[in-house]
Amino acid sequence: MTDLILHNYYRSSTSFRVRAALALKGLDYDYESYHLRRGDQRESDFLGINAQGLVPALQTSEDVLTQSLAIIEYLDEVYPQPPLLPKDAIGRARVRSLAMIVACDIHPINNLRVFRYLRKHFGADNEAAATWFRHWTETSFEALETRLVNEAETGNFCHGDSVSLADICLAGQVINNERFNVDMSLYPTIQRVHSSCMALDAFKKAHPSAQPDAE
Amino acid sequence: MTDLILHNYYRSSTSFRVRAALALKGLDYDYESYHLRRGDQRESDFLGINAQGLVPALQTSEDVLTQSLAIIEYLDEVYPQPPLLPKDAIGRARVRSLAMIVACDIHPINNLRVFRYLRKHFGADNEAAATWFRHWTETSFEALETRLVNEAETGNFCHGDSVSLADICLAGQVINNERFNVDMSLYPTIQRVHSSCMALDAFKKAHPSAQPDAE
Repeated sequence: MTDLILHNYYRSSTSFRVRAALALKGLDYDYESYHLRRGDQRESDFLGINAQGLVPALQTSEDVLTQSLAIIEYLDEVYPQPPLLPKDAIGRARVRSLAMIVACDIHPINNLRVFRYLRKHFGADNEAAATWFRHWTETSFEALETRLVNEAETGNFCHGDSVSLADICLAGQVINNERFNVDMSLYPTIQRVHSSCMALDAFKKAHPSAQPDAE
Repeated sequence: MTDLILHNYYRSSTSFRVRAALALKGLDYDYESYHLRRGDQRESDFLGINAQGLVPALQTSEDVLTQSLAIIEYLDEVYPQPPLLPKDAIGRARVRSLAMIVACDIHPINNLRVFRYLRKHFGADNEAAATWFRHWTETSFEALETRLVNEAETGNFCHGDSVSLADICLAGQVINNERFNVDMSLYPTIQRVHSSCMALDAFKKAHPSAQPDAE
């Protein structure tokens, strides 16, 4: 029995982040799927769960939590083992800033709803949408790669040799990139960290292809 | 004497967030300005400070911190008074999720560099850019308003009667909206919280118009 329900979609990278955190913490949950391209998440039932009409949302016995990074910070506070943030304030700031390169500066600009707007209002075709995706991903991955190469704290994972919030965001984005032919050979350190992540059972379990709604 | 240097720009709403947090904590800092439209933040000197070439960045005696929310979480951990996050995990999750509606789902899509891409690759004119800004702001403000109206934790501020990270993000966005004619009468609760914020000296001090590089 579990009191956690994850409202999510197999291919959503923000959903992946929460699935990875839940798996790392060893937490079971019920899986509720919303088909984003069909618009399930904008049905009134789900709007009562998350007024934003976005996945993921994590229902606990206390409340419904939204925004993947806020959900993961909550899980890390309530289920502290294994920790997903370092103990020192500077280390936590570093991990959060690496995570937010993906969570603020890549993903929201490359969301399905943004592609829809580009198609509808600017006549973007598939190739223009893919070029847009790669532009924002590559701009930020270049900076992320530079930081990971130059900063002494980088280890097998983004921050030392244990997995953190930054790795969760990085892996979700790298998986997303596969659909848009991003040339990952430009980012050897990101690719190396991604491989470290995907060697873990928790990341395998969170992978889109392992979800019940995978197509 | 201060050991904090804030690399920022008067009109950047992410810079505003950090200025507001610093002022709420009563911290002095040196102000370094980067003219974003001239591209100062992409000069090599600044790229050595932040590989992303984005403001704000906060230089401390220990390290350079980037990403406004990661900076503010750091400030809240190292200078805990007054707290910018509630004490309970559910409350913190709520405040972070409200903050991220702005920080993830509005601001990154409406950044200067996104407008530049729309102009260059999709021929967007000023009106198309303003319509884009309003679309993403209004979509998320509608959800934010719904949450603030319906959730019992809302008080004079987003979370009870003391200021939090969520208010800092909200106020920065409302100030940004003024340049794009967003109809704030649609969001009376957001507007009320914004007024509570702007009555505080710290928010007045952080306002774009009060900065040395204001035009």
